[in-house]
Amino acid sequence: MVTVVLVSPRNPLNIGAAARAMSNFGFFDLRLVNAYRVAVDEARSGVNAGRVLAEAREFPSLAEAVADCHLVVGTTGAGPRDVTVPLFSLEEAGPKMKRAKGRLAILFGSEKFGLSNEDMSHCHWLLRIPTREEHRSMNLGQAVAVALYELIRNSRARAPQPPAPPGATAGAEDRLLQYLIESLTLCEYIKPPVDASQILKLRRLLRRMALSEKDAVMWQGMLRQVLWKVKQ
Amino acid sequence: MVTVVLVSPRNPLNIGAAARAMSNFGFFDLRLVNAYRVAVDEARSGVNAGRVLAEAREFPSLAEAVADCHLVVGTTGAGPRDVTVPLFSLEEAGPKMKRAKGRLAILFGSEKFGLSNEDMSHCHWLLRIPTREEHRSMNLGQAVAVALYELIRNSRARAPQPPAPPGATAGAEDRLLQYLIESLTLCEYIKPPVDASQILKLRRLLRRMALSEKDAVMWQGMLRQVLWKVKQ
Repeated sequence: MVTVVLVSPRNPLNIGAAARAMSNFGFFDLRLVNAYRVAVDEARSGVNAGRVLAEAREFPSLAEAVADCHLVVGTTGAGPRDVTVPLFSLEEAGPKMKRAKGRLAILFGSEKFGLSNEDMSHCHWLLRIPTREEHRSMNLGQAVAVALYELIRNSRARAPQPPAPPGATAGAEDRLLQYLIESLTLCEYIKPPVDASQILKLRRLLRRMALSEKDAVMWQGMLRQVLWKVKQ
Repeated sequence: MVTVVLVSPRNPLNIGAAARAMSNFGFFDLRLVNAYRVAVDEARSGVNAGRVLAEAREFPSLAEAVADCHLVVGTTGAGPRDVTVPLFSLEEAGPKMKRAKGRLAILFGSEKFGLSNEDMSHCHWLLRIPTREEHRSMNLGQAVAVALYELIRNSRARAPQPPAPPGATAGAEDRLLQYLIESLTLCEYIKPPVDASQILKLRRLLRRMALSEKDAVMWQGMLRQVLWKVKQ
């Protein structure tokens, strides 16, 4: 069970974006701490506000918001020297969070100041999204999206794949090769007598294309038409 | 080298958010195709607009925007049954993109409609962020952040990969496409006027071939020779 906690969010668009990313990735428990009143109302009345925003709960303090959580993880753009709580990269944090038993809370601070030292004191540890040193601070909605993506990464069944189209047989490729050689000879790209190295070169070219059966048929049709025209 | 391409973005906040995530994760080449004029101006004048937005380039067409790119990857919320281009989950796409030689372009469609079929025909393949079936569509700025996070994820500990031959740029493939269309029209395989769906079909065929730079040059040479002959 995963809970997303926004601490002191100010911007209704960010609250909405956080909720949208949660819904995209299948998380539904959003909690707001000390949120800017107008921002929450505006977010909740947004056209795209869905179930996550409708069910979001508000708390006057962080302690109350995370009271039922078993693991509390804060997010920060800060480096390890700036914090007094263990700090992991998001990649390291992912498996630790997935292994967590009970309810996991992931905390995001306000757009302007991030989590305060007091907020961090509620955390078991912190995670940092691996942004550049020179531009560490992420947009709140984007930070939520990236952190949640790491949580579901590889956990969902792979995107269902269309069955790979059947490949052309070597025989079909060689028929194509014959058309190609005949066309190129008639067009004087190849000068007769055709030598073996030219055939090899063209066969390798066709093999590298790794044509499907259908594409090979399409190429055959095109080359047959070229042959017909050139022979006129 | 990574390029982010926003196709027909409408919302200045999303353009700004995409640029911010790029800067956070260390990517600086942003290209805008057919962007809503007012939105671009507003985004560029935003208080947090940094280097990425200042240097963002605008293009009238997607073909021009990706002409110098070797691998073109589109993003979609659609399932495999809805698209005609190979589709991978973001987790699968990550290593493939990291291995790419030359310039990689990642395309994001408009907020409302995503990438069109025409846009997708410019792509070698598509990636899908693993959102829930019931709520697939992500906010544009968040989708950019998540996709780029996957690209830099664990990048310090990347496994060395076998070198691949440099791929043909999208521009080289499109020149090849022009030769092919001209040849096929002269050979009466295509009856003029050439309609858009035929061009899409042929562009997809070429993208599926995933030609190397060298092989694209070879095909160009062969088709030029066909053209020369047929015009005689």
